[in-house]
Amino acid sequence: MTGMRAAVLYGKKDIRIEEVEKPSAGPGEVVVQIKAVGICGSDVHYYEEFRMGKTYEMVEPQILGHEPSGIVVETGEGVTGIKPGDRVAVEPGETCGCCRHCKSGHYNLCGDVRFLSTPGNKGAFAEYLVIGADMVFPIPDRMSYEVASLSEPLSVGIHACELAEVKPGDRLMILGGGPIGIMAAAAALAFGVTDITLGDIQENRLQFAREHCHVKHTVNTGELKTEEIVERFTGGEGFDCVIETSGAPVADYMSVDLVRKGGRISLVGIPKDEAVQFHIFDIIDKEVTLKGVFRYANSYPLAIQILDSRVIDFDAVITKRFELEETAEAMDFALNHKMESVKTVIVNAK
Amino acid sequence: MTGMRAAVLYGKKDIRIEEVEKPSAGPGEVVVQIKAVGICGSDVHYYEEFRMGKTYEMVEPQILGHEPSGIVVETGEGVTGIKPGDRVAVEPGETCGCCRHCKSGHYNLCGDVRFLSTPGNKGAFAEYLVIGADMVFPIPDRMSYEVASLSEPLSVGIHACELAEVKPGDRLMILGGGPIGIMAAAAALAFGVTDITLGDIQENRLQFAREHCHVKHTVNTGELKTEEIVERFTGGEGFDCVIETSGAPVADYMSVDLVRKGGRISLVGIPKDEAVQFHIFDIIDKEVTLKGVFRYANSYPLAIQILDSRVIDFDAVITKRFELEETAEAMDFALNHKMESVKTVIVNAK
Amino acid sequence: MTGMRAAVLYGKKDIRIEEVEKPSAGPGEVVVQIKAVGICGSDVHYYEEFRMGKTYEMVEPQILGHEPSGIVVETGEGVTGIKPGDRVAVEPGETCGCCRHCKSGHYNLCGDVRFLSTPGNKGAFAEYLVIGADMVFPIPDRMSYEVASLSEPLSVGIHACELAEVKPGDRLMILGGGPIGIMAAAAALAFGVTDITLGDIQENRLQFAREHCHVKHTVNTGELKTEEIVERFTGGEGFDCVIETSGAPVADYMSVDLVRKGGRISLVGIPKDEAVQFHIFDIIDKEVTLKGVFRYANSYPLAIQILDSRVIDFDAVITKRFELEETAEAMDFALNHKMESVKTVIVNAK
Amino acid sequence: MTGMRAAVLYGKKDIRIEEVEKPSAGPGEVVVQIKAVGICGSDVHYYEEFRMGKTYEMVEPQILGHEPSGIVVETGEGVTGIKPGDRVAVEPGETCGCCRHCKSGHYNLCGDVRFLSTPGNKGAFAEYLVIGADMVFPIPDRMSYEVASLSEPLSVGIHACELAEVKPGDRLMILGGGPIGIMAAAAALAFGVTDITLGDIQENRLQFAREHCHVKHTVNTGELKTEEIVERFTGGEGFDCVIETSGAPVADYMSVDLVRKGGRISLVGIPKDEAVQFHIFDIIDKEVTLKGVFRYANSYPLAIQILDSRVIDFDAVITKRFELEETAEAMDFALNHKMESVKTVIVNAK
Repeated sequence: MTGMRAAVLYGKKDIRIEEVEKPSAGPGEVVVQIKAVGICGSDVHYYEEFRMGKTYEMVEPQILGHEPSGIVVETGEGVTGIKPGDRVAVEPGETCGCCRHCKSGHYNLCGDVRFLSTPGNKGAFAEYLVIGADMVFPIPDRMSYEVASLSEPLSVGIHACELAEVKPGDRLMILGGGPIGIMAAAAALAFGVTDITLGDIQENRLQFAREHCHVKHTVNTGELKTEEIVERFTGGEGFDCVIETSGAPVADYMSVDLVRKGGRISLVGIPKDEAVQFHIFDIIDKEVTLKGVFRYANSYPLAIQILDSRVIDFDAVITKRFELEETAEAMDFALNHKMESVKTVIVNAK
Repeated sequence: MTGMRAAVLYGKKDIRIEEVEKPSAGPGEVVVQIKAVGICGSDVHYYEEFRMGKTYEMVEPQILGHEPSGIVVETGEGVTGIKPGDRVAVEPGETCGCCRHCKSGHYNLCGDVRFLSTPGNKGAFAEYLVIGADMVFPIPDRMSYEVASLSEPLSVGIHACELAEVKPGDRLMILGGGPIGIMAAAAALAFGVTDITLGDIQENRLQFAREHCHVKHTVNTGELKTEEIVERFTGGEGFDCVIETSGAPVADYMSVDLVRKGGRISLVGIPKDEAVQFHIFDIIDKEVTLKGVFRYANSYPLAIQILDSRVIDFDAVITKRFELEETAEAMDFALNHKMESVKTVIVNAK
Repeated sequence: MTGMRAAVLYGKKDIRIEEVEKPSAGPGEVVVQIKAVGICGSDVHYYEEFRMGKTYEMVEPQILGHEPSGIVVETGEGVTGIKPGDRVAVEPGETCGCCRHCKSGHYNLCGDVRFLSTPGNKGAFAEYLVIGADMVFPIPDRMSYEVASLSEPLSVGIHACELAEVKPGDRLMILGGGPIGIMAAAAALAFGVTDITLGDIQENRLQFAREHCHVKHTVNTGELKTEEIVERFTGGEGFDCVIETSGAPVADYMSVDLVRKGGRISLVGIPKDEAVQFHIFDIIDKEVTLKGVFRYANSYPLAIQILDSRVIDFDAVITKRFELEETAEAMDFALNHKMESVKTVIVNAK
Repeated sequence: MTGMRAAVLYGKKDIRIEEVEKPSAGPGEVVVQIKAVGICGSDVHYYEEFRMGKTYEMVEPQILGHEPSGIVVETGEGVTGIKPGDRVAVEPGETCGCCRHCKSGHYNLCGDVRFLSTPGNKGAFAEYLVIGADMVFPIPDRMSYEVASLSEPLSVGIHACELAEVKPGDRLMILGGGPIGIMAAAAALAFGVTDITLGDIQENRLQFAREHCHVKHTVNTGELKTEEIVERFTGGEGFDCVIETSGAPVADYMSVDLVRKGGRISLVGIPKDEAVQFHIFDIIDKEVTLKGVFRYANSYPLAIQILDSRVIDFDAVITKRFELEETAEAMDFALNHKMESVKTVIVNAK
């Protein structure tokens, strides 16, 4: 067996750096040498509890990480268009291609998806990764691997914008200034939205949004009443769209009050509770549309283009870097600095 | 003053038949002699409480009724296309034509709408009505005025179907078998949906739906668990669309569990409480779309066509008829037989 | 080698019934015993000229036929949901699943499609066929294999309706009363369109449409001026949608004059010439939308449901049946009776 | 009678500066003192031939001009939101508000539109203009009236982008580098499209596009074959969208060859001939969508926002200014410098 180093999670807060089998490329597949992998909130959840919510439960040792970029080192039979040496971002969810969701363009809803780092599907905190050739997307020479690894969370932001049908001229409110809120702002700017208000209850997040993202306004939603926010930033009419990324139940409720008649809301943040309250009278009286946002589809080429356009300061989004051998420390950092950091990234400088 | 008879609501359960001024047609207007007016749940609310919800409060004596049909007896200056003698259904909400909602085709969201029978806007429980010529729509000779008066609630059903994007091949669940649920079923059939399940907790409503509407299945949602309903009627996949018309908070919550991944939900029924709980985890995990439904727009010609197609037994929908002089009795009947009746109509047989 | 009988086209009008290798099912595949296959105009083209248009040229002996139905006799490894004995309609175009078109739900545009009976891709004029399990769709017990084989042309009709965005209340003109025109009418009826006018220059086709399809009007487009058609069937306003299936250049031109302001046109019929004239001034002045229609996507379940609903007399659409051994005679019949027949079908009664 | 100065067209090339009645504001109307009016190609047509195409024929002396901006000097009864002193851009087409097109949001298709400067509807080459209060849109203090007058042609560009469904990540080809092509480029940039190729056969127009608009590529479409253009700028795949603004029949034909499978084409430029040839085989084989573009709807607020964003150098678009008294000279200039100029504007510096 040819081996490689990987960070394997054995249980709660038990990550061990081990030698595991190095993958090779079957027909239609490529092997990518991982250069950077962002740490997602879900990785931290698994690290802390060896499970996530009611649905996702680890049953055996698992390699986490699903936001990788790297360099192609091997291509399988029949692979065209991608060749060894290509620098790529990696989309992490291989789907069946045959179900109604895949065939109708909504492959993010595929029930047979093999999504990196979910229970049973090896992740990217390792030296190498094998994946379908259609899951890797070339990045420009001038783009760093770390920035390329942002393609994944940025894809969520793109999909949230698509479902909220944001368009130039809209007034957009983004609730939550964490990584997804920031990526939603970057996506919205790329969609031509210039009037973005970002709301959070953490001052440092608002400051980050003001300094590094080109949001027009920020607001501490814990300090201002909803109707005052509506009055101040929309003249009383309400926002055309709201993208909720915080996962706070109060933000879900607030979203309906913030939006104008006929407005659209994307719900991205997952509250801890299964059920939350919504202002049903206003949903109907204002004829509001609410859409759940689950991952993304067909977004990587655009994500890479947006990253390359530098519509916000993507470098600033990367708070701290760790080596693969330091994966446990990286997890602890992400866990303990949730509010002061944006993105923690595992890099392989070799 | 030329007079006419009208039923004027003076306060809670205080309707008086009075002589009021008969309207005449200004430029662009028509006068309609009312032949039939359906009684809506909102009329009954105003009758019982002289208000509806927090938003709509009566401040002076008011003529109710907003589901009229009749015969044009006078046309104002500049009216073309409509002439005295035309039998018509009347759309009850005149809008400003100038705001962003009107200009973009969503006139149902116009903030300056003058909607018959809302506080300050005279309704149709009277002998005559004046309204813009663009608000009356000719009906076929063979259609009764009573059936024509169903254009209004059927328009709500049409709009609910439009927002839920129902289409041939869909499996549709309609929650609530009252007038709006039945009209949603009629609209869905006209949109080519053949696999309709209607759910209610009242046996007599399910029986009505089975006998008079062409729903494929009915289910007592109080007796079967949600997952059993999904299994029995969709093989476990979930409904493509759900139209919630009952106004029961439990139905709002259930709607998300009933719908499939990527499914669409129209929310029509207004719960008594301002806020209700939704299954947020599944909204996101299944990427569900929820849309509030407020009235309708551009639906009358289609509504009349559907009524004429007899896609369901519309005559059976009309439970009982009363004369204008009997408006108070009609209200009491509608109030006291809410569950056993479908539509009560005020008719003018003269 | 286990053999089977097949009709192989060796050149212009040179079909030979031969023993060829019987296929077996690889992983994810099924073998279908063919029970019925409709003959398409493109089959007849290849039979007559061993090519079709500029794009499609035969280079070696070829089995034609791409409208099959039959019974599953073998399933490969990993196939679930489909089992031997299942009666199925077969969608004939396997696609790559990986390109931008496949991943976005427009798999009909996949550049790597293997479409039965196109050059290099074996067709269905044979005893057996192997294909991906996701390409076969169960049919109801009561449906004949011959009617099931109409799923393919009906899918074209469905897609034409989808692209023309037909909906209840629309006035629809279908140009051309051949198989595709008839299937477009069936699809439109299923979409809730009741006001269908079918135009052709062959009286017998108009008669067929009147007797067996539920079109509201028929019109001989060779005898009436376009403006007279518009006046007679739409009161001068123009049709909401036009579906052009005849392939006559004059029909392409006429389509723009027939449609109303803001109307939609689906172009299905392929003229012999590469270029045809369109009324450009009116396309712009009336803000018309024109869409080319290429095959279909995600339509088979709905097609089967429509066939089962008997919205038109589908049995009457099948003009004549031939056995596999008579494939050449069937081709000659289809070629020589193009105008008097609708669908010729190869059946395997064994 | 209170008078004002106006430029009245009496016949071919016969413009006379005259004293005419100054308008006053009726209910819901405002009077605008005109500060700048762009000259449109249609104005030049009327000036040259006293008619335009087959449809629009002058029958009496006429004031031209439909791209005005100015300052509100009087408001009629019931006007709210707009007050004397407001600096505004003026949308030139008042519509009925009652027809199916107006009520469904497509008021640009209203048959009863009163569009400034079309036969019988006074235009803006005058000191004052009266119009509905909903037709004027406030502009920022820092925006010049001349730039504000570009709201009208920019609205056409916006609408062309909307109909072509341009979005971030698209490769867009704009055919024609005249005023509308330039405005389409500005609109596309605002919609987030960064990969714009502009094609023309005039070198100076390509140079203007390179220097003042932020198009990524320019190409002389007279010098390069269509397939070479496709290869060079899209790697052979074809453009996602094409916006045709030149009005050259060859460009209409070329548009289909330039676009990718599933691509969208907006047709804005009106050829002199009523009919032009289109590549019908490819429209169908590539499943292309073509849409005529007629004026615009609901675009002014966005147009003003785009002008204020300075996404291109709008000041450079204004080639030359003339005073109202010089309207004939301005027309001659626009007529004689069609290819070397972009926008000629009538200004009122007083």
